[in-house]
Amino acid sequence: MKKIKIGLFGFGTVGQGIYQVIRRATNAHASIERICVRNLSKQREIQTDKSLLTDNPADILDDPNINLIVEVVDDPEASYRFVTEAIRRGIPVVSGSKAMIARHLPELIELQRKHSTALLYDASSCGSIPVIRNLEEYYDNDLLLEVKGILNGSSNYILSRVFDHGEPYSDALSRAQQLGFAESDPSFDIEGFDSLYKLIIITVHALGVYIAPENIFTYGISSISDADIRYAREKSMKIKLVAQVAKVSADRFTMFVMPEFVTPSRYIYSVDDEYNGVVIRGECYDRQFMFGKGAGSLPTASSILSDVMARRHGYRYEYKKMDYVDRPEYTTDVTLKIYMRHPGQSFLKDIPFSRITEQYTSDGYNYVIGEISLSDLIGIRNRLSDPRIFIANFPQFFLHLDD
Amino acid sequence: MKKIKIGLFGFGTVGQGIYQVIRRATNAHASIERICVRNLSKQREIQTDKSLLTDNPADILDDPNINLIVEVVDDPEASYRFVTEAIRRGIPVVSGSKAMIARHLPELIELQRKHSTALLYDASSCGSIPVIRNLEEYYDNDLLLEVKGILNGSSNYILSRVFDHGEPYSDALSRAQQLGFAESDPSFDIEGFDSLYKLIIITVHALGVYIAPENIFTYGISSISDADIRYAREKSMKIKLVAQVAKVSADRFTMFVMPEFVTPSRYIYSVDDEYNGVVIRGECYDRQFMFGKGAGSLPTASSILSDVMARRHGYRYEYKKMDYVDRPEYTTDVTLKIYMRHPGQSFLKDIPFSRITEQYTSDGYNYVIGEISLSDLIGIRNRLSDPRIFIANFPQFFLHLDD
Repeated sequence: MKKIKIGLFGFGTVGQGIYQVIRRATNAHASIERICVRNLSKQREIQTDKSLLTDNPADILDDPNINLIVEVVDDPEASYRFVTEAIRRGIPVVSGSKAMIARHLPELIELQRKHSTALLYDASSCGSIPVIRNLEEYYDNDLLLEVKGILNGSSNYILSRVFDHGEPYSDALSRAQQLGFAESDPSFDIEGFDSLYKLIIITVHALGVYIAPENIFTYGISSISDADIRYAREKSMKIKLVAQVAKVSADRFTMFVMPEFVTPSRYIYSVDDEYNGVVIRGECYDRQFMFGKGAGSLPTASSILSDVMARRHGYRYEYKKMDYVDRPEYTTDVTLKIYMRHPGQSFLKDIPFSRITEQYTSDGYNYVIGEISLSDLIGIRNRLSDPRIFIANFPQFFLHLDD
Repeated sequence: MKKIKIGLFGFGTVGQGIYQVIRRATNAHASIERICVRNLSKQREIQTDKSLLTDNPADILDDPNINLIVEVVDDPEASYRFVTEAIRRGIPVVSGSKAMIARHLPELIELQRKHSTALLYDASSCGSIPVIRNLEEYYDNDLLLEVKGILNGSSNYILSRVFDHGEPYSDALSRAQQLGFAESDPSFDIEGFDSLYKLIIITVHALGVYIAPENIFTYGISSISDADIRYAREKSMKIKLVAQVAKVSADRFTMFVMPEFVTPSRYIYSVDDEYNGVVIRGECYDRQFMFGKGAGSLPTASSILSDVMARRHGYRYEYKKMDYVDRPEYTTDVTLKIYMRHPGQSFLKDIPFSRITEQYTSDGYNYVIGEISLSDLIGIRNRLSDPRIFIANFPQFFLHLDD
């Protein structure tokens, strides 16, 4: 079995973690041969042999000695260039760039097939939890009903600080950034896009269907207020940022990212701090729960290591489910029950609730609880970005085991 | 890709579940061609075409049309005969027979290599949770420190009934048997042997080392008393039957099955009823938790289906870690802190505690808490089978992340 010789793109938090992990994993028989960075003179915590570093991608891509690219660049466009160029040259790639992968997955699958090489990206979803690999290899059957979970470590860290420790939102956010959980652009985490990208990748491996980001309702936690938190607390619930994909009938499924009220009996209730937790629900096995560190340098790096080792044994995703004849179709024609904090009755007039079941109005705080279709939520999504609005979903099973 | 044509050995609870699951999983392109049973005239819940059933193993083994054997026979000796004969003939096998596999694994690995065929058995450990596959494929690195969990659904169901519902032990046991969680011989579950067999299989895939059952300390829950339960409750703990394998230094590991006191902050605290939960702890990723149904007909059958599907894509265990040069060595030279209920001081005299930290004596209930080595526990294991004795372990980390 040949030694894995890695060309590493990116030497930030995750890149430096990979450098440490590869050195510890002596049985991996892998070594980092070259590291491509944007800025050679930047100060880094990890000191390496200077000759390892380069700012010229060709020093990796043209090196016949390098047989695996690991790409963890914090810039989707650069990431796209490096990854596609490597695949075109037949060099296998391990990538952690969820935004890039989620945007370009159909093309990346096509490229892998055309050039007979592999792109692995388990680290792109839920850090150290092997969600993608398990959906691809293990839950490869018709029984899967739902994948749902907390996929973003930093927003969950923030909600934990706010909910369990009573910290103000802004303090919690800056603390998450200090600890290296939050991306350089925090809106990526806070507005739900990080969860969205992971959900898109998960859906490809869960159901064999790719849905582009712009077609998926995504709502984050940036406008959450003390009133919303108090509301949830009074009812012994937490608010979590939840991503979910679920079959709604035998041949249709839906997906979205939205804050959700979580009661203590749910598995994800106790997923706190920077942890991620994913519930996989299916016929016959009911619910399985996978839980682990979803963010941070070393957890992500350990997931990259697993993909590196898998390459040593020639592993690649087969995207089997994309070839299934009866893949389910995406629908937004589903009714959700949501909580909406709003600035007053006049705002509510144009919100197409099909039914309102509760209303509360006071001097400083108004909310309604009602039913609304997901497609209507998509229709008004620009208006929902008003900071005076916050919405959260009450969970439901879209498809019961006995349906 | 060829259709999977299954010869099924065993048509009890799990076998009938497999029959149902295979029919539901239309994308699996698998069918059951023949079912070998011991007793053709036995009444079964699931009605099948009579021509499917046979009591002659040769009707499956000699059928050139059958390209996969699924073996779920509730008799380790018969299971061994069918599985080894199939492998010798080059027919791949999916098996759920943990006792047989745990006893014969070195030979079964050798046979697979010699005859270039595959034996998959993810269903043998933790029912529907993909523990084996993940240890084999994903945690394939030097970072793994510990695998620990609740591996037996029926003893956990019983402890849940006793602990959370205040049921007497015997009622809980018979209810578990009614529900089909407990094996036909309940001592298999209750005395820890089921957990032991799973732990042996897990250890092969976690660390690449096989340890025979007789060399591993195994202690069950059959002698648990109201006093023990009260003791745990007063301290806000539960008692769970826990199996664990853990590195104690860079080059040594230990393993055992024993009741353990579990505090609410532990992941396995909330693993109740027939569920299983496994914590995988490693450098860099800290702890990962996998949770799901560990017993019952359909959960086990869904795990068998995953192995069947994996065979469709030619998957086999490579047992990579067995080839590692620096595999850790098994040791029982570790100190445990245990609770021991005992019949009186005279019994205690011959128990080689290295240190006793607490003692309690009353008319009907005596216990000590103290330190004792695992090898000494193995030395006195016959004396511990006295029903007046019950022991439980206080958990510890054998190897810390920074050691």
